[in-house]
Amino acid sequence: MQKGRILLSVTGFNPQRWQELLSADREVVLAPDGPNDPTITYAVVWKQRPNLLAGLPNLRAIFSIGAGVDHIFTDPTVPDVPIVRVVAENLTQYMTEYVTWRVLDHHRQGMLYRTQQRKKIWHEPPQRPANDISVGIMGLGQLGRAAAQALLALGFRVNGWGRTDRPMAGVTTFSGDGGLIPFLNATDILVVLLPLTPATHGIVNYGLLRELRRRNGLGGAVLINAGRGRLQRDADILRALEDGTLKEASLDVFEVEPLPRTSPLWAHPRVFVTPHAAATSDPAHLAAPMLEQMDAYERGEPLHNLVNREAGY
Amino acid sequence: MQKGRILLSVTGFNPQRWQELLSADREVVLAPDGPNDPTITYAVVWKQRPNLLAGLPNLRAIFSIGAGVDHIFTDPTVPDVPIVRVVAENLTQYMTEYVTWRVLDHHRQGMLYRTQQRKKIWHEPPQRPANDISVGIMGLGQLGRAAAQALLALGFRVNGWGRTDRPMAGVTTFSGDGGLIPFLNATDILVVLLPLTPATHGIVNYGLLRELRRRNGLGGAVLINAGRGRLQRDADILRALEDGTLKEASLDVFEVEPLPRTSPLWAHPRVFVTPHAAATSDPAHLAAPMLEQMDAYERGEPLHNLVNREAGY
Ligand SMILES: NC(=O)c1ccc[n+]([C@@H]2O[C@H](COP(=O)([O-])OP(=O)(O)OC[C@H]3O[C@@H](n4cnc5c(N)ncnc54)[C@H](OP(=O)(O)O)[C@@H]3O)[C@@H](O)[C@H]2O)c1
Ligand SMILES: NC(=O)c1ccc[n+]([C@@H]2O[C@H](COP(=O)([O-])OP(=O)(O)OC[C@H]3O[C@@H](n4cnc5c(N)ncnc54)[C@H](OP(=O)(O)O)[C@@H]3O)[C@@H](O)[C@H]2O)c1
Repeated sequence: MQKGRILLSVTGFNPQRWQELLSADREVVLAPDGPNDPTITYAVVWKQRPNLLAGLPNLRAIFSIGAGVDHIFTDPTVPDVPIVRVVAENLTQYMTEYVTWRVLDHHRQGMLYRTQQRKKIWHEPPQRPANDISVGIMGLGQLGRAAAQALLALGFRVNGWGRTDRPMAGVTTFSGDGGLIPFLNATDILVVLLPLTPATHGIVNYGLLRELRRRNGLGGAVLINAGRGRLQRDADILRALEDGTLKEASLDVFEVEPLPRTSPLWAHPRVFVTPHAAATSDPAHLAAPMLEQMDAYERGEPLHNLVNREAGY
Repeated sequence: MQKGRILLSVTGFNPQRWQELLSADREVVLAPDGPNDPTITYAVVWKQRPNLLAGLPNLRAIFSIGAGVDHIFTDPTVPDVPIVRVVAENLTQYMTEYVTWRVLDHHRQGMLYRTQQRKKIWHEPPQRPANDISVGIMGLGQLGRAAAQALLALGFRVNGWGRTDRPMAGVTTFSGDGGLIPFLNATDILVVLLPLTPATHGIVNYGLLRELRRRNGLGGAVLINAGRGRLQRDADILRALEDGTLKEASLDVFEVEPLPRTSPLWAHPRVFVTPHAAATSDPAHLAAPMLEQMDAYERGEPLHNLVNREAGY
């Protein structure tokens, strides 16, 4: 039996490596042979071209190039086939590094020390140990749990918030609407690792940031967003930075990406900007497992890491 | 029986908190009642005044405010009584945070991203995962081992070098003169946590830095020194940065401290300077255990964390 063809549809980066690696085992095309191409069995996508998938009669599954799938659902015509997202050690590793890096840089006052260095100031500010600081992780899923584990190992106190209550050793967990305010009230450094869904869109707004704990001597709360840009309101973050609600922020994602040159976030002295690079999907690590899932599926085995369409993640 | 008096001698910072906390249990003086004061039983010191301890007839032990004791031995008249150094969870915690923070900032290209942000450049450079990077820890003692453990947990490969061979799970260990070059040749990011002794003085020189591994795509090796400033040659570090031997450096310690305003290290775009603040001795955590050691010693129990005078640490 011939192996089903893969349609690869990517916006925003060059899909060449994906094409090469997926081609090792299956025929890969960048566009169907007409809108009803019956030879397409799988779609591998990142922000696929709108309407592209709607008419394909033999599409069996969509594979997201990434842990998040909001980029798929922006097209309302996406057919109702299983959607597989990325859950992979390599991706989780990158995100754990990013979160630990950013938490430590804020905790150890990197921004202050860099300012002092520019002015050649030799001065040691008061420093608390990690076990006096509570990091709150919004979205205690695959990535959130791994980040929590790394932060616990470094001595931080960790709170976690999710849709459902999933206990985790060493972590104080909160869930649902009722758990959100208590979670924020107990958090000094907020790490956002939520998926973007109708329920989470714009959740990181001024009102939410106001609920973060602001303790004496810490100079305001800290926000780290490595989830999705549209979880946050860029303008609300700026407002919170200006009025002392937030001390500093590390943002990997933005309402509009690439972040427009006109955004005041770029030049804000207490904002650290990275270009949606916290955990990039590396085809060298992700293409082979994708091909294996396709083979297994064709042998009748179930797909893994399926998206719950109703929940949107 | 009256408890022995403590002589507190500190240079470089205000000893008030130490004085308050040690006074909770014993009489504390900042200067002896004359050069042969028989009432002084213990000295608690950081860079004590030269000749201060030489004549005290009843001095039973010297307690270093800090893990290192080089500041004591700069005075050749220090009497031959036991010297106790700091080994404490709180201090180790701070150093582990510092080392992990600096390793991650270099590994995750913080300097590049900060430069890009200044220019409003949205660009993602290639990024390796931690398990492709070898961190080499020079000085695998109390602090080095804890840092190694934290780095292993984050996925880094870890090499360690010490005077004697002390195996550690997950770490590739090297020791002595014969082990130094192989250790350096296998190291991408060098973390210096050695004590300053006659054997280690100036060890981090240009020749040593040249032996670090320089792999394609990493743009040079990285140096992190949180041991002591006189382990390194500031000028050699600058030379290594200029000719590409080193990509970047994080320095918490310097040949002369405070780092003179004339030092080119301050303004070097690839050097991160902190003011000997990696792991500061916090009296709130360290004074009580010191007092407990004195009590135990007077009950006839042995002192802990004693310095080997011959080795110098
Ligand atoms: N910046 C980057 O480079 C980058 C890279 C990869 C991923 N990401 C982002 O990271 C996100 C998380 O990835 P993941 O693999 O950890 O996802 P995941 O395993 O699906 O975890 C999602 C977490 O968010 C929680 N959640 C979802 N909706 C919620 C709601 N309405 N209220 C409260 N909690 C809610 C979930 O709660 P339950 O546990 O109850 O389900 C779960 O804890 C992705 O969706 C993606 O947007 C960013
Ligand atoms: N920047 C800061 O804020 C700060 C704060 C605290 C401490 N420090 C510095 O950190 C240093 C280390 O502290 P620690 O508590 O980890 O000390 P430690 O437990 O005594 O460990 C010292 C390590 O260095 C090794 N070593 C000593 N001399 C050596 C030599 N000649 N060649 C090779 N290896 C040698 C030792 O080898 P063996 O295992 O074979 O003995 C041991 O592994 C202190 O001495 C201090 O200078 C800095």
